[in-house]
Amino acid sequence: MKIPEISLPRVVILGGGFAGLNIAKRIDTKHYQVVMVDRHNYHTFQPLLYQVATSGLEPDSIAYPLRKTFADKKRFHFRMAEVKSVDESTKIVQTSIGDIRYDHLIIATGARSNYFGMENVERNAMPMKTLTQSLDLRSLILQNFEKALYCNDINEQKRLMTFVIVGGGPTGVELAGALAELKTQVLPTDYPDLDLRDMEIHLVEAAPKVLSAMSDHASRKADRFLDKMGVHLWMNTFVKDYDGQTVITSEREIPAETLIWAAGVMGAPIQGLNASKIGAANRIIVNTKCEVEGADNVYAVGDVSLMATKNFPKGLPMLGSVAMQQGTMLAKNFNAMAKGKKTREFKYKDKGTMATIGRNRAVVDLPFYKFSGTFAWFTWMFVHLMLLAGFRNRVVTFINWAWGYLRYDQANRLIVRTYRRNKGEVLEQNDV
Amino acid sequence: MKIPEISLPRVVILGGGFAGLNIAKRIDTKHYQVVMVDRHNYHTFQPLLYQVATSGLEPDSIAYPLRKTFADKKRFHFRMAEVKSVDESTKIVQTSIGDIRYDHLIIATGARSNYFGMENVERNAMPMKTLTQSLDLRSLILQNFEKALYCNDINEQKRLMTFVIVGGGPTGVELAGALAELKTQVLPTDYPDLDLRDMEIHLVEAAPKVLSAMSDHASRKADRFLDKMGVHLWMNTFVKDYDGQTVITSEREIPAETLIWAAGVMGAPIQGLNASKIGAANRIIVNTKCEVEGADNVYAVGDVSLMATKNFPKGLPMLGSVAMQQGTMLAKNFNAMAKGKKTREFKYKDKGTMATIGRNRAVVDLPFYKFSGTFAWFTWMFVHLMLLAGFRNRVVTFINWAWGYLRYDQANRLIVRTYRRNKGEVLEQNDV
Repeated sequence: MKIPEISLPRVVILGGGFAGLNIAKRIDTKHYQVVMVDRHNYHTFQPLLYQVATSGLEPDSIAYPLRKTFADKKRFHFRMAEVKSVDESTKIVQTSIGDIRYDHLIIATGARSNYFGMENVERNAMPMKTLTQSLDLRSLILQNFEKALYCNDINEQKRLMTFVIVGGGPTGVELAGALAELKTQVLPTDYPDLDLRDMEIHLVEAAPKVLSAMSDHASRKADRFLDKMGVHLWMNTFVKDYDGQTVITSEREIPAETLIWAAGVMGAPIQGLNASKIGAANRIIVNTKCEVEGADNVYAVGDVSLMATKNFPKGLPMLGSVAMQQGTMLAKNFNAMAKGKKTREFKYKDKGTMATIGRNRAVVDLPFYKFSGTFAWFTWMFVHLMLLAGFRNRVVTFINWAWGYLRYDQANRLIVRTYRRNKGEVLEQNDV
Repeated sequence: MKIPEISLPRVVILGGGFAGLNIAKRIDTKHYQVVMVDRHNYHTFQPLLYQVATSGLEPDSIAYPLRKTFADKKRFHFRMAEVKSVDESTKIVQTSIGDIRYDHLIIATGARSNYFGMENVERNAMPMKTLTQSLDLRSLILQNFEKALYCNDINEQKRLMTFVIVGGGPTGVELAGALAELKTQVLPTDYPDLDLRDMEIHLVEAAPKVLSAMSDHASRKADRFLDKMGVHLWMNTFVKDYDGQTVITSEREIPAETLIWAAGVMGAPIQGLNASKIGAANRIIVNTKCEVEGADNVYAVGDVSLMATKNFPKGLPMLGSVAMQQGTMLAKNFNAMAKGKKTREFKYKDKGTMATIGRNRAVVDLPFYKFSGTFAWFTWMFVHLMLLAGFRNRVVTFINWAWGYLRYDQANRLIVRTYRRNKGEVLEQNDV
């Protein structure tokens, strides 16, 4: 029996990240027509962006075309568009390709970098939230070394080879580790004329320790790994200003051409929502069913949502696993509603967290077991391979990793993009 | 014994294409100090650019970092820079990173698109000579379909889905075939809402047949393959104008959003050379030893050089195989000179030419044997895999091809770059 699509309630999902993807996969389109809107035509596997930035993986390996994901799903429509705003009274989303009417609106627009109001830092730092930003960062890192080669001023040369990473969470730690491996394994053969002892990697973190969301064991181990790999750690330290030349922290000034911002993220909600629904870190306040209270059939999931639970009274952390689980829960609730069944509240199941620092060096926190080192590293790789979308992506990523493991080499050090950061010009999140 | 590098004659190679690469690989740096200058930090395997443009391969697979290629070569220096001009009197090359002195100058700067003075076409057509151009083309192709989706005007929709390729040489033929396969194999699942019968691929060629540099058998077969795959062939036809909306050919007007220029190339010599040394198609006239006559220790190799031989009185064709063989010859001559031995003249050895049109459809001309079809296709793939630089690149390319073969699917259809062609603005060759 062909279901007349027009008569079904229309669910509009804004964003094809972990949350949006999981909803779309699980929602039953016998009962709903689904429209997904994203400004990219692909899903990005954000946990591996840092490997694109450090020449370890090619961008195609960690992205997956959204149309392809849902090619077999009936009554599913993908729209590549920029979301402009929402009008709750008429139930319309305004986008760059026109208005889209909704019956149910799911906001899964994720997070963006939070510079805490420091305009200079925003203007001059490199973010790493999207595929294109990671590619830009890759080119910038390599271009700095090309520039350093022709630099006669020894201080300027050192400044070009100094990288300051702000934020000691998983992204910052993994990036610092990857840069440290570039320094010892790859760059000496590429730039024999440079004295790579002058390459410095600084990791700045406002909290007293790295990976503060993980266990003490993980923090301590990661700290030791990074220290061994020659990363300068600045705990209890925060960045105050950056003019593109020198990073000013609460502890000291660090002359550096590159400041990578992995410190803070904030929700990226859409315009037009009633402002009173926005909570801390710009996230949309939802109840435990991801419903935006007071709004009519509007939901928020993943990083952009702020859901307080018993264990997390200040809101669940902005993690991929939370986004995935919320997406699954919301899809199930939609399916239940369609059948007149009871909907359920969200319960976060902590499946563990992990971070890799380098070859044979990772930390894994499982709910009842914490470990680190070589086995943790292989665990990290296996889990991330399995989480990647698409068999081809897994194979290509596996080859790249195996290659790097056997040859101590990163294959993809091409400067493909022109260096597009213009100092003194604020990059629009959507512009890059 | 450490050779004091400073006392060796310095050979400066401009360009890391097939010719420059082969010289640098084979020149003996016991006798010369070698400096290679290229505006990219990688070598591009140009024969496969069309697969990057049609989502078949990722850019990292067909490029190889030049520093890595020569990591073990002593007295070899790579400089990533834009060449500005040469001053023959002082033996200095001016570049974006400063002056470089030479004792021997080898110009291997290759070719660029030749629009035969048609400024409108240059302004509005897409070239496909570099990796970034191919990536831009990929994004443009896919973005056209995204746009077509929201287009209510049926003529405009058809115009967005019309692709005109100018030039029936290997590049044009291979690109037309790849687009035809996208049309039948990939796009119908990605865009079920579009009527893909409206997608048209036109191949425009001024000569009476495609692949006119190959055998009659190859031309005839390629013509039949393309015809079967639904490509519109316009022989004896040339493009007269293109305003970005409608292609005006000598036969008819074709409304098309995309015009891909694979028609003509011309040498890309450097500024400052004595103009009298420039011959047809902007190529530098050389003798059979690649020497620029009348100039002091200046050589030109590959596409940028114009060498007349007995079999090719108007000059050797602009082919990768010619460039490679000339590079090898010149390196050997340099090595011979260093030992006081006799240098040799260039003899082109035609090892055959080939082109692929699609799955199980290729044409191969060997000197004494011409064949086409499935075996030719596998031959084409094998030869191109072997020619690719780097084991990792071969493995990843093989996987992508095997995947495409088994799944009738192109994996990499990401719109990663913003569509950067601004109609009405001439793209600088070096700008993209």
